[in-house]
Amino acid sequence: MAPQGFQLYDTTLRDGTQQEGLVLTVDDKLAVARHLDTFGVGFIEGGWPGAVPKDTEFFRRARTELTLHSAELTAFGATRRPGTAVSTDPQVRALLESGAPVITLVAKTDVRHVELALRTTLAENLAMITSTVRHLVHAGRRVFIDAEHYFDGYRANRAYALECVHAAAEAGAETIVLCDTNGGSLPDRIRDTVTDTLTTTGARLGIHCHNDTGCAVANTLAAIDAGATHAQGTAHGYGERCGNADLFTIAANLILKRGLNVLPADRLTTMAETGRAIGELTAQPAHPATPYIGRSAFTHKAGLHASALRIDPDLYQHTDPATTGNRMRTLVSDMGGRSSIELKARELGYTVTAGSEPVARAAARIKKLENLGYSFESADASFELLLREELSAGTAGPHPFTTDSWQITVEQHSGTTISRARIRLHVPGTTPITATAEGSGPVNALDCALHQALDTLFPSLAGLELTDYQVRVPTSRRGSAAPTRVLATFFDGERSWSTVGVDENLITASWQALQEAFRYTLRDITSPVTAMPVPSGP
Amino acid sequence: MAPQGFQLYDTTLRDGTQQEGLVLTVDDKLAVARHLDTFGVGFIEGGWPGAVPKDTEFFRRARTELTLHSAELTAFGATRRPGTAVSTDPQVRALLESGAPVITLVAKTDVRHVELALRTTLAENLAMITSTVRHLVHAGRRVFIDAEHYFDGYRANRAYALECVHAAAEAGAETIVLCDTNGGSLPDRIRDTVTDTLTTTGARLGIHCHNDTGCAVANTLAAIDAGATHAQGTAHGYGERCGNADLFTIAANLILKRGLNVLPADRLTTMAETGRAIGELTAQPAHPATPYIGRSAFTHKAGLHASALRIDPDLYQHTDPATTGNRMRTLVSDMGGRSSIELKARELGYTVTAGSEPVARAAARIKKLENLGYSFESADASFELLLREELSAGTAGPHPFTTDSWQITVEQHSGTTISRARIRLHVPGTTPITATAEGSGPVNALDCALHQALDTLFPSLAGLELTDYQVRVPTSRRGSAAPTRVLATFFDGERSWSTVGVDENLITASWQALQEAFRYTLRDITSPVTAMPVPSGP
Repeated sequence: MAPQGFQLYDTTLRDGTQQEGLVLTVDDKLAVARHLDTFGVGFIEGGWPGAVPKDTEFFRRARTELTLHSAELTAFGATRRPGTAVSTDPQVRALLESGAPVITLVAKTDVRHVELALRTTLAENLAMITSTVRHLVHAGRRVFIDAEHYFDGYRANRAYALECVHAAAEAGAETIVLCDTNGGSLPDRIRDTVTDTLTTTGARLGIHCHNDTGCAVANTLAAIDAGATHAQGTAHGYGERCGNADLFTIAANLILKRGLNVLPADRLTTMAETGRAIGELTAQPAHPATPYIGRSAFTHKAGLHASALRIDPDLYQHTDPATTGNRMRTLVSDMGGRSSIELKARELGYTVTAGSEPVARAAARIKKLENLGYSFESADASFELLLREELSAGTAGPHPFTTDSWQITVEQHSGTTISRARIRLHVPGTTPITATAEGSGPVNALDCALHQALDTLFPSLAGLELTDYQVRVPTSRRGSAAPTRVLATFFDGERSWSTVGVDENLITASWQALQEAFRYTLRDITSPVTAMPVPSGP
Repeated sequence: MAPQGFQLYDTTLRDGTQQEGLVLTVDDKLAVARHLDTFGVGFIEGGWPGAVPKDTEFFRRARTELTLHSAELTAFGATRRPGTAVSTDPQVRALLESGAPVITLVAKTDVRHVELALRTTLAENLAMITSTVRHLVHAGRRVFIDAEHYFDGYRANRAYALECVHAAAEAGAETIVLCDTNGGSLPDRIRDTVTDTLTTTGARLGIHCHNDTGCAVANTLAAIDAGATHAQGTAHGYGERCGNADLFTIAANLILKRGLNVLPADRLTTMAETGRAIGELTAQPAHPATPYIGRSAFTHKAGLHASALRIDPDLYQHTDPATTGNRMRTLVSDMGGRSSIELKARELGYTVTAGSEPVARAAARIKKLENLGYSFESADASFELLLREELSAGTAGPHPFTTDSWQITVEQHSGTTISRARIRLHVPGTTPITATAEGSGPVNALDCALHQALDTLFPSLAGLELTDYQVRVPTSRRGSAAPTRVLATFFDGERSWSTVGVDENLITASWQALQEAFRYTLRDITSPVTAMPVPSGP
C-alpha cells in the first residue's frame, strides 16, 4: 500500500519556530533534530541560513555535531532576487554554503503576491524560479519548491499558478510542495486543486498546510488522497497563527488509518516519547488533548465509559494507545464516581471494588476536596496517598513525619536576593528536628530544608527530585480569596508522578505539594528505623 | 444558501465537562449557558438530569434563573433500560421532570455495544429506542437521538445501524445525530456514511464528532456537505480524550467559507468575547492557536510576513480578524527583527521607522533579554516601557520611583499562615518611603505594600488590579538555575495588559513584573506633584 519513497518532511525548526512564545537556541535546535531523526522523519528543515543568523550558525555546527541516520538535513531559502544574476545572489550562496544536501526554495505562485509583495513581473518570477532551481541542481543539491500561497494563487489565476509548478519541475525541482500559506482552505478545495495540478503538470507534489480553519490535518490527508506524496508538518503543530499541520497526527493517521508506512518499522511506538522530549526542549509541551500522544488522548472520565471500559477497552478506544507509545488512563472525579475510583485504583495495582466502604469514603473525600479547588486528575501520587489512607483506615501507623511550623524569607538588598527556609518537624521516636536551608527561591529552599531534615533518617528520599512545578491562580475578578493550585512533578529515580497543593497562599500550597511528595516516597515506610540502611559486608 | 432551520447544538455543559481538569459548579453552568445563548446557538445541552446530581440541580435552578432568548434548553439522557416499561423508568422520568423542552437520547446503534455493553438483544434495543422516543414525544417534548458509535456500528453491521435510525425517525425523533463516539474516523468515511444513511432512511441527520484523529472539524463539515443539517460541538472543543468538535470553529467555517448563516446576524463578531468569557468560567482558556478566536490566530512573527503586512494585511490573512471579534497582532522577537518592532510600535500608537536608532537599540535590548529568558510576545506593557525608554533616550526624566530593598516572609505555625512584605522606595523629591503590608500570599503582600507606599502620591495607581498571574518554571533537569518567568496581567479600569519578570527566584520575578506594572501605569507621570489631584469646585 505504501507509495515508494513517501516523503515525510518536518519543518519544526523553521516554520514551527514562528509559533508565539517558541524560542530555540542553536543547542536546542540540534537536540530537536536528533529526536526527529531517531523518530524517523525523512527530511528535517533546519532553518534559513543567510537570513537568520542563528540558522546560519545551526548549519555550521550541524556539519560537525549532527549525525543523521534516517533524515536528510534541509535548508530553506528563497528564489534569487528580481533582476539579479543567481550566481551573485548572497542568499542563494548562503544556501550552498550551509552544506545541506537538500534545499527547499520558497517561490511565489500567486499573481497578487508577485506584483504587490515581490514587486516584479510575472515573467521575471518564473525566470527566478527556473534559474535558482537550475543553479542549485547544477551544484549537486536536491531541490524542493515551497509553492507559497498556492491555493489562493490557483483560485486567483489558475494558469499562472500551474505555470510556476511546471517551470520548477522543468528546471529540475524534485517535488513541488503546494502551500496553503494563509491556512484558509477546506479539504474539498485542497483535493480538487491537487487533482487538477497533478493531472495538468505531472509533477511530483507535496502539501504544506496551516490550521486557520482547524482543518490542517484533514487538508493534508485530502492532498495525499488526491496524489501528493510528500507531506510537511511540525511537531505538535507548532507554527505561526493557528499553527502548522501536526506531523505526529499526520504520521499516525497515515500509518494506522491509511496503511501508508511513512516511518521506518516500529518507530510509531516512540512517537509519544519523541513528542515529550521535543516539548521539553521548546518549553511548550503538547496540549493534553493532542491526538494519539497527548496526556489525555486515551483518558476517560465519564461514568458511562468507565463502566464499559471494565468490560472491553476497545469499545471506547479507536486504536490501541500503545501503537503510539501512549497509555489509557481513567480520571478520578465526581462525574465518574466510584467506578472511576475503582478503575484508577486497579491501574495503580490496588484490588478494590466500587461498592466497598473505603471507595465510598475516598469518593466522599475527593468530592469535598474538589469543591475546595483540589484536582486529583493529574495528581496521581496525592490520589494514591488518599486511597491508601482509606484502605488502611484504623490499621495504619502514624505518618513517618509531621510538621510543626515553617517559615520562608526572601529578601533583596543591593541587587542580591537570598531565600531561606526554616522548618520544624516531628519524626516518631526522635526529638523534634529543626532544619534551615537557603535555596534559589522559596520553594527550592523548602525542598532543601526537607531533604536536610529527613534524608539521613530516610535514605530513600535522597533521590527524590522536583522536576516541574505549575501554578494556577484563578483571576481575582472571580474573588480575591480564590485558591491557588500548585501541581508539582517529581522524579524518584524510576518514574515521574505528581502531587497537588491548594491554598489561598502560593507558598502554603507549594509546601503541601512538597510534603505530599516526601510522604509518598515513604509510603511503605512508617518509622526511620526500617529505613536505615543495612550495613553490607566488607 | 442557508438551509432552513440549520441546528447549531452546543454540548459544552454535558460532553464538554468530560474534559480532563474541567469542573463546573451549577453557577458556572448557568453563566456558560447565558453566554452561549447570547452568542446565538440553537440548542444548549445542560447535562444529564437524574444521573448526575449536579445536573439535576442545574435544570431545577434553570427553570427560575435562566431566561434563554435564542436557544432551547436540552436535557441529555438514555433510552429506557432493557426489559422494563418506559413509564416506570426513573431516568426517563427525571428527563421529563427536568422541564427541558428538548430531550436528546443516547441510543446504541453498534451491535457490539448492544450485546457487550448493554447486554441485551438487537430487537430489545430497537424496542427501547421506539418506546422511549414515543413516550417523550407523547409528553410534548422535541426529541433528538444521539446515535452512539454510529460510524463504527455502520461498518460492523450496516443494516442494523440503519434500522436504528429508521426506528427512531418512525417513532417521532426530529433529528438523528450520527456520533463518531470514539473519534477514529476520517472525513471520507464520514461523508460516505452520511450520504448512504440519508439516501436510505430519509431521516433528518445531525453530526457529533470527536477529535481523536485531529479531524473533528473537517469531519463535521464533511457530514454537512453530505446533507446533515444539525451540528454538535463544544466551546473551544472541550471534551473527553482529544475533545469534541470545536463549535466556534465550525460556526465560523460554515458562515465564512460555506455561506451558511448558522447564527443570528452579526453574532459571529462576538465569538472571541464569548470564547474568552467561557474560558474564564472553565479556567481553561482557549489555546492561543485556536482558529479564528485564539490570541495568536492572527498574530505574525516572521520578518518576511511582517514586511509584506505593511503593504496589505490581506496578503497574509485568510479572513478579516474583526469578523470573529479578533484582531491582528505582530510579535516582537529576534525573528521579525526591526520590521516587527516597527509594526508593534505603530499598533501601540507610536510613530517610528524600522531603520531608526531607537528601534535598533530596542531590537538589541530585546534580543539580549530574550537570551536571559524574557519574552515580550505577551508582555505588551513591558515592551512599551522598553520602547519608550529608547524613544526618549537622554531626554526622559527619572523613573517616578526606584526600589531600595524589599523582603517577604511567609510563616506557618499552628495551622495559621501569615504573609508579610516590607519595601523601601525612593520617589524623587520625597524622603525614602518604607511600607509594610500583609497579604493573602507573598505576591499579594508585595502588591499591597506598593499600593500603600505610592497610591497617595500617585492617585492613578488606586484602580490598578492584578487579575491574572502565570508562572512558568522550566524543568530542573535542564539545569537547576533555569530562570522562572512570571507573566502578570493587570486591569487599570479601562483595559488589560501584561508585564513580565524573569529570575531564578519566583518572588524576584514576581516583584519585577509588579514594579513594571506600577511604572507602566505612571508612564506619562514622572513626579508625584503632577499626579496630585486638582481640588474640584464645591
